[in-house]
Amino acid sequence: MTTTLIRGGLVITAAEETHADVLIDGGRIVALADHAAELPWNADQVIDATGKYVIPGGVDAHTHMEMPFGGTYASDTFETGTRAAAWGGTTTIVDFAIQSVGSGLREGLDAWHAKAEGNCAIDYGFHMILADVNEHSLKEMDALVGEGVTSFKLFMAYPGVFYSDDGKILRAMQHAAGNGGLIMMHAENGIAIDVLVEQAVAAGRTDPRHHGEVRKALLEAEATHRAIQLARVAGSPLYVVHVSATEAVAEITRARDLGLPVFGETCPQYLFLSTDNLAEPDFEGAKYVCSTPLRPVEHQDALWRSLRTDDLSVVSTDHCPFCFTGQKELGRGDFSKIPNGMPGVENRMDLLHQAVVEGRISRRRWIEIACAAPARMFGLYPRKGTIAPGADADIVLYDPHAEQVMSAETHHMNVDYSAYEGRRTTGRVHTVLSRGELVIDGRRYVGHAGHGRYQPRGTCQYLG
Amino acid sequence: MTTTLIRGGLVITAAEETHADVLIDGGRIVALADHAAELPWNADQVIDATGKYVIPGGVDAHTHMEMPFGGTYASDTFETGTRAAAWGGTTTIVDFAIQSVGSGLREGLDAWHAKAEGNCAIDYGFHMILADVNEHSLKEMDALVGEGVTSFKLFMAYPGVFYSDDGKILRAMQHAAGNGGLIMMHAENGIAIDVLVEQAVAAGRTDPRHHGEVRKALLEAEATHRAIQLARVAGSPLYVVHVSATEAVAEITRARDLGLPVFGETCPQYLFLSTDNLAEPDFEGAKYVCSTPLRPVEHQDALWRSLRTDDLSVVSTDHCPFCFTGQKELGRGDFSKIPNGMPGVENRMDLLHQAVVEGRISRRRWIEIACAAPARMFGLYPRKGTIAPGADADIVLYDPHAEQVMSAETHHMNVDYSAYEGRRTTGRVHTVLSRGELVIDGRRYVGHAGHGRYQPRGTCQYLG
Amino acid sequence: MTTTLIRGGLVITAAEETHADVLIDGGRIVALADHAAELPWNADQVIDATGKYVIPGGVDAHTHMEMPFGGTYASDTFETGTRAAAWGGTTTIVDFAIQSVGSGLREGLDAWHAKAEGNCAIDYGFHMILADVNEHSLKEMDALVGEGVTSFKLFMAYPGVFYSDDGKILRAMQHAAGNGGLIMMHAENGIAIDVLVEQAVAAGRTDPRHHGEVRKALLEAEATHRAIQLARVAGSPLYVVHVSATEAVAEITRARDLGLPVFGETCPQYLFLSTDNLAEPDFEGAKYVCSTPLRPVEHQDALWRSLRTDDLSVVSTDHCPFCFTGQKELGRGDFSKIPNGMPGVENRMDLLHQAVVEGRISRRRWIEIACAAPARMFGLYPRKGTIAPGADADIVLYDPHAEQVMSAETHHMNVDYSAYEGRRTTGRVHTVLSRGELVIDGRRYVGHAGHGRYQPRGTCQYLG
Amino acid sequence: MTTTLIRGGLVITAAEETHADVLIDGGRIVALADHAAELPWNADQVIDATGKYVIPGGVDAHTHMEMPFGGTYASDTFETGTRAAAWGGTTTIVDFAIQSVGSGLREGLDAWHAKAEGNCAIDYGFHMILADVNEHSLKEMDALVGEGVTSFKLFMAYPGVFYSDDGKILRAMQHAAGNGGLIMMHAENGIAIDVLVEQAVAAGRTDPRHHGEVRKALLEAEATHRAIQLARVAGSPLYVVHVSATEAVAEITRARDLGLPVFGETCPQYLFLSTDNLAEPDFEGAKYVCSTPLRPVEHQDALWRSLRTDDLSVVSTDHCPFCFTGQKELGRGDFSKIPNGMPGVENRMDLLHQAVVEGRISRRRWIEIACAAPARMFGLYPRKGTIAPGADADIVLYDPHAEQVMSAETHHMNVDYSAYEGRRTTGRVHTVLSRGELVIDGRRYVGHAGHGRYQPRGTCQYLG
Repeated sequence: MTTTLIRGGLVITAAEETHADVLIDGGRIVALADHAAELPWNADQVIDATGKYVIPGGVDAHTHMEMPFGGTYASDTFETGTRAAAWGGTTTIVDFAIQSVGSGLREGLDAWHAKAEGNCAIDYGFHMILADVNEHSLKEMDALVGEGVTSFKLFMAYPGVFYSDDGKILRAMQHAAGNGGLIMMHAENGIAIDVLVEQAVAAGRTDPRHHGEVRKALLEAEATHRAIQLARVAGSPLYVVHVSATEAVAEITRARDLGLPVFGETCPQYLFLSTDNLAEPDFEGAKYVCSTPLRPVEHQDALWRSLRTDDLSVVSTDHCPFCFTGQKELGRGDFSKIPNGMPGVENRMDLLHQAVVEGRISRRRWIEIACAAPARMFGLYPRKGTIAPGADADIVLYDPHAEQVMSAETHHMNVDYSAYEGRRTTGRVHTVLSRGELVIDGRRYVGHAGHGRYQPRGTCQYLG
Repeated sequence: MTTTLIRGGLVITAAEETHADVLIDGGRIVALADHAAELPWNADQVIDATGKYVIPGGVDAHTHMEMPFGGTYASDTFETGTRAAAWGGTTTIVDFAIQSVGSGLREGLDAWHAKAEGNCAIDYGFHMILADVNEHSLKEMDALVGEGVTSFKLFMAYPGVFYSDDGKILRAMQHAAGNGGLIMMHAENGIAIDVLVEQAVAAGRTDPRHHGEVRKALLEAEATHRAIQLARVAGSPLYVVHVSATEAVAEITRARDLGLPVFGETCPQYLFLSTDNLAEPDFEGAKYVCSTPLRPVEHQDALWRSLRTDDLSVVSTDHCPFCFTGQKELGRGDFSKIPNGMPGVENRMDLLHQAVVEGRISRRRWIEIACAAPARMFGLYPRKGTIAPGADADIVLYDPHAEQVMSAETHHMNVDYSAYEGRRTTGRVHTVLSRGELVIDGRRYVGHAGHGRYQPRGTCQYLG
Repeated sequence: MTTTLIRGGLVITAAEETHADVLIDGGRIVALADHAAELPWNADQVIDATGKYVIPGGVDAHTHMEMPFGGTYASDTFETGTRAAAWGGTTTIVDFAIQSVGSGLREGLDAWHAKAEGNCAIDYGFHMILADVNEHSLKEMDALVGEGVTSFKLFMAYPGVFYSDDGKILRAMQHAAGNGGLIMMHAENGIAIDVLVEQAVAAGRTDPRHHGEVRKALLEAEATHRAIQLARVAGSPLYVVHVSATEAVAEITRARDLGLPVFGETCPQYLFLSTDNLAEPDFEGAKYVCSTPLRPVEHQDALWRSLRTDDLSVVSTDHCPFCFTGQKELGRGDFSKIPNGMPGVENRMDLLHQAVVEGRISRRRWIEIACAAPARMFGLYPRKGTIAPGADADIVLYDPHAEQVMSAETHHMNVDYSAYEGRRTTGRVHTVLSRGELVIDGRRYVGHAGHGRYQPRGTCQYLG
Repeated sequence: MTTTLIRGGLVITAAEETHADVLIDGGRIVALADHAAELPWNADQVIDATGKYVIPGGVDAHTHMEMPFGGTYASDTFETGTRAAAWGGTTTIVDFAIQSVGSGLREGLDAWHAKAEGNCAIDYGFHMILADVNEHSLKEMDALVGEGVTSFKLFMAYPGVFYSDDGKILRAMQHAAGNGGLIMMHAENGIAIDVLVEQAVAAGRTDPRHHGEVRKALLEAEATHRAIQLARVAGSPLYVVHVSATEAVAEITRARDLGLPVFGETCPQYLFLSTDNLAEPDFEGAKYVCSTPLRPVEHQDALWRSLRTDDLSVVSTDHCPFCFTGQKELGRGDFSKIPNGMPGVENRMDLLHQAVVEGRISRRRWIEIACAAPARMFGLYPRKGTIAPGADADIVLYDPHAEQVMSAETHHMNVDYSAYEGRRTTGRVHTVLSRGELVIDGRRYVGHAGHGRYQPRGTCQYLG
């Protein structure tokens, strides 16, 4: 097999910044050496990383490729979505397989394997959405943990679709406490929110901005608190997805101060966008409809602070794109009909690097929240998420000084708008390797569908 | 009409302690005068209160006379229950009329009026239990507020019986915010608890003490928090009934620190009894089965402290007696079949006075939590709950030095056990007047069924 | 002695609102009677209170008449100051006698008795400022408690003048815990503040607004927290004077949630004025220099909320007037030379009634924070602070509909400016009785210096 | 220079666990390689680490070698102390140079350099104790930062010795905010404590256990809170040394939740010992006298939890040994005369590994709190505290299965007792390298005084 040497870059992991050369053999990192030591290594291929950051490939632990929603499908397939991910410096995604109500987990998982297999440019794993908690599906959880599907998402929102009541949630948590699974929670009080939705629509408050108004921060905080208490009763850990509200962060902070195994994720859209976007005229606000919703701009500071204090641990994208034309438009005249979701899998690493440039987080914390922590959280570490001997050679050469302007014109996601249209950022992916093979080579895509492999995952590495 | 003068006692209200004589005319208090001033009043009847406390009659804002539960009925009728209340120094009760699922509020209220009318020894009002929140019952709330039924109880427990989901709760709170009604909440996450109940029974953990173990403090706290957040969203006040857990109190304290109109009630059983009682052998623990359940003894200190800091505002009894023989016994071998409830309407004033004797609360706070605060909370003040010109002459002469031993042998409630059997307390009711008429005269019952009148109530007086 | 009947008003106390007539004999209230009952009382004098509130005279627990400060004296004498107080509906003040460093408490107290005796229009008591805590002064505390001086003020600010270090504070608290005295605390970290003052002046930041900037909210909160912890160690209660910062209120709230005997006072200037006033041009800001300082306007909401939640219990004035001309001007070019203090004894009752008008507090809470609570706090209740049989007939007839404009032109305090110049308020004192004698009769001053008597006080009535 | 290869061990850092070989050249680590990859490296010396942990040498950021205290000196010299440190797996200490009152920092630092130079078995750095904050010493701080003394300790305890008042603390913090220095704080309210000490001794409460009783947890918490507030005012970071009380931890947690740059250190004695030890009879309690004092055993859980949640970041020893005979005995009959301090530099790594064995912390967290975090905190990372290319080859081979019994009989510290006498632990240092040279070779000391070099330090690496 080919050996590759990446020379002269600044290797940045969650823990260290080192001027080190990285030796790759057989798709894995076999050694790191002090660059100044000039060890006499022979490699088949030498990549010059001078002036670049050498970072672990990004791990995006929250994507929804080809997800069905409200009669349509998220517009990125595994092929287009993983290729866009690679362009954006992400080399692993964990997507959500979905159990249908009345079916088993197995059937849902099989369907998602079928969608992904042979189509991915980068590696991928699966979480499982539990839409129908019952004796049978609880038992299936055990088997799935054994196959590397070790995390299970439940919804406190979307009654009639994904919603589980507190009894089902408790049962699933109890079961996960036994088999090592990690419960992921969409924490919004959907029962109450749906009352407000109905009242808003009935009263003619149908514009996209009302989506943000009815999905109240207090109802996100409430559900977050409730999920935490149920997890305490069950003796299980908890991972809260897409935290957006200051008040919800406060609940997570309280739990973590108590030493509870409670974790929070946020997403770039909550860090960089706000209800101002939801209020854009001419139905443009629909582009920003996702749940939990965007919040007023003053919530952003609390999210950034919590990322610094590790009260929030992971930044994922919740990538779930729907085209403005033909898809988002389904909700003209009734915001509740707008497909929920936004594109972002390509933008995450760059947006977070921009936060480094602006002094909000350190370089190491950038790598931690975008690579190392999601890998640890979902049992992929140290195979993924770091640069260390033995790890997969999923490596990005990142040019910290390049400038770019985000735009639907230039992005690679299969969606007709960018949520960050026109935003200038400093820093850009230059070259990407996945298990030692070049996927992006100096801003040229050289990968191929089918390179990406399914990654069975271990259990959460923040526990025990 | 007869005029009565109560001379020489120490008049204690929530606000004052005064050596004052009290002049009664036409069933109302017409004047208070400094005893030393010896005003030349002529009264038809003079009652010597020397050495006694002269206090407002107790207001018990939480009773369940003749309540149906699990195929049986609470063993006190309005006749026996209100007589026992009078023996215990309580001159007003507010009982819960119950809406049946599928029926209207009106039908339920009419049924309760029929049970009470002509049977009560003391005055009474009604709260309404909303078991079926829908467009019709929401509209009926407005009418009831106009008739003096100004408070509405919802349940987050008892799925299939009284349970309302968060959407129904939100709707009811929104409606109450508009019509001035006060939402009362049974705050336990019954959906989650019922899972634990089922698991306990299936596992053979069927003794009464398991009732306390499955109804976890965290699940009371969770529901309390949730009710508070829903009330914030609705812009409505909230009154949490029978708070028993330290963690639930903490949620109320947090809300009150924010200045929210959130109020908490506790009951004597939580202040004086504990899970030690639930664990009494030979199924005796069943006597203490009520919901929220009794808690480990260390919760008592938090409750007492919260009564002192006014984070809890009211002590009611949740009087709902079931005989041990034939009723509590329905749950032998399955604690979930034990009728929930305990007797107490006769004991409340004495138990709280005992807390005065033991230094836990002041005399004025005794009167506040047992008389004035419930009267204000439920729109009866100053007609009830105080001794002031214009108030109803509901007055108790209380002997602070008399000693008694509580016992089923001597109590007047229609139930075959006392939850406080053998407990010695200092202080005893001596004489009771209701609207100026003697009901208890020197430890002799001289009242009669039918004296008590329905009391339409105004809205909560802690608001606005 | 003359008997007086006040007929037809709405009697408002902290506890009740009653349409009652008030009978006065021998300077005391002897009876309250339901107005509608039309009891056949003969009185020498009948005052018609129709359309008026009949309220207890105000108790201002924090004044500094003729106080020496920085080489000058507060401009109100006991004669002018108590007359102005009466005009404003206050019938009792508690002023601060001052121990000089190197002298005993006795000497200071004697000096203040000499200043006040024969000069006061209304009743008065004394707190004692402990400026020199030592074995001798600690022993003197016991004697003073016996003479009705039951509260002792310490300063964490003003090093070299009133400042006590934490050891002295602890000793004084320990001593007070033994003799029933209440420690009052000026809670600002004066040691740290004086560093900031020195740096500001050295840097040429000498305008009055810098007074507010150097006396930081965090340093008020710090000292408040420290005083609370020292009181916990000593096992003593604590009363924090002139609380102005949100962060300091939060410390008091935390302590009260724990059930600690910690109390807070604020003043009208913190409720109605702000750093905007301190920043008034042409040295006008000097009029508003006091310590703790005025805060940015957003602190006001926290103070009002805390008055509603009873985390703050008392509103006093800290009346300590210095004329702008000749006194405040001492600090031109150096804000640290501006005498600290503001006039207000005449304005308090009206400003707080304005808060009633604006819906910030209820009528009963108005009376509680201005009359009843200070009386209870400092051992004057029920003689002062309420309208009840046996109480002193210190009564104000208050016209709730009259309008006024506050101004130095019309006020009766001996100071050349009003802190509230031009402010329109609704409500005005109409008639004032002190121990049954008219002091203000229909907006005419009919009192006289020497009517006011020294009031020995009992210990704090919120304890035990 | 010699090259060394450490083969076959499990390399553990704060971030990773890797089966890696470590190549050392010129005293530094030049490469890490996947052990399985069997890279063809030639090394002069190969150390077999099979079955061992390969960990960074410990960094003990809090020692007091030869420290003068109350007329005597800590019994370890730099020679004996650093040798014992090496035996215990610690390869860097940061000791405290002391400014004498009336002298400059320079003089104190020179004196400590003279004590250490040529005598140390391992590397060392210095913090500086500021005992006399004034214009001159503030200016000297700048120079010291330039020389690698970047942290400055202040005392809120020990009036008359090291104590600084809040004004001096504020000035020093302001200065540190400017020059990048880190303020370290001994946070106890020594002014108040000394009152309690005096009262205890006067009352005959002179046993060692009274040392723990007078130095109250509330007074540690108070000082911690105060230091935090002063740091906020100054805009400076803060490192609180030897945190021992739950209440103090809570203050640090609150600060960190706000995102403030506040850090806490605890010590093994607070994690493993308690007031039970202070109460040992026959004056044996004196062995455990240190300040902050040992706390009741229930505080330990809060400390461990805070180490897990990173509310406490570092475990140092505060090594300051005094022999029982002749030194601790100075305090017979008066606990205030007992020299404050305990031995521990040799025990820290083993005690913390025992916590790994007992499941309290993970292996990586062990390395983080004992090696990486102190190195980052005090500007030594990545030279010290990790195993990475470019780092100093300060490496410990740790046998995780060896058992030992701690004892004064066998330890290498120059003190006649062990605070952990008889304690069995699992895990033991096997071999120690300092900058690539063997100091301990298979449980044999092969180092020498003078090998250790002064380490100038950069500024705190946890800041922006």
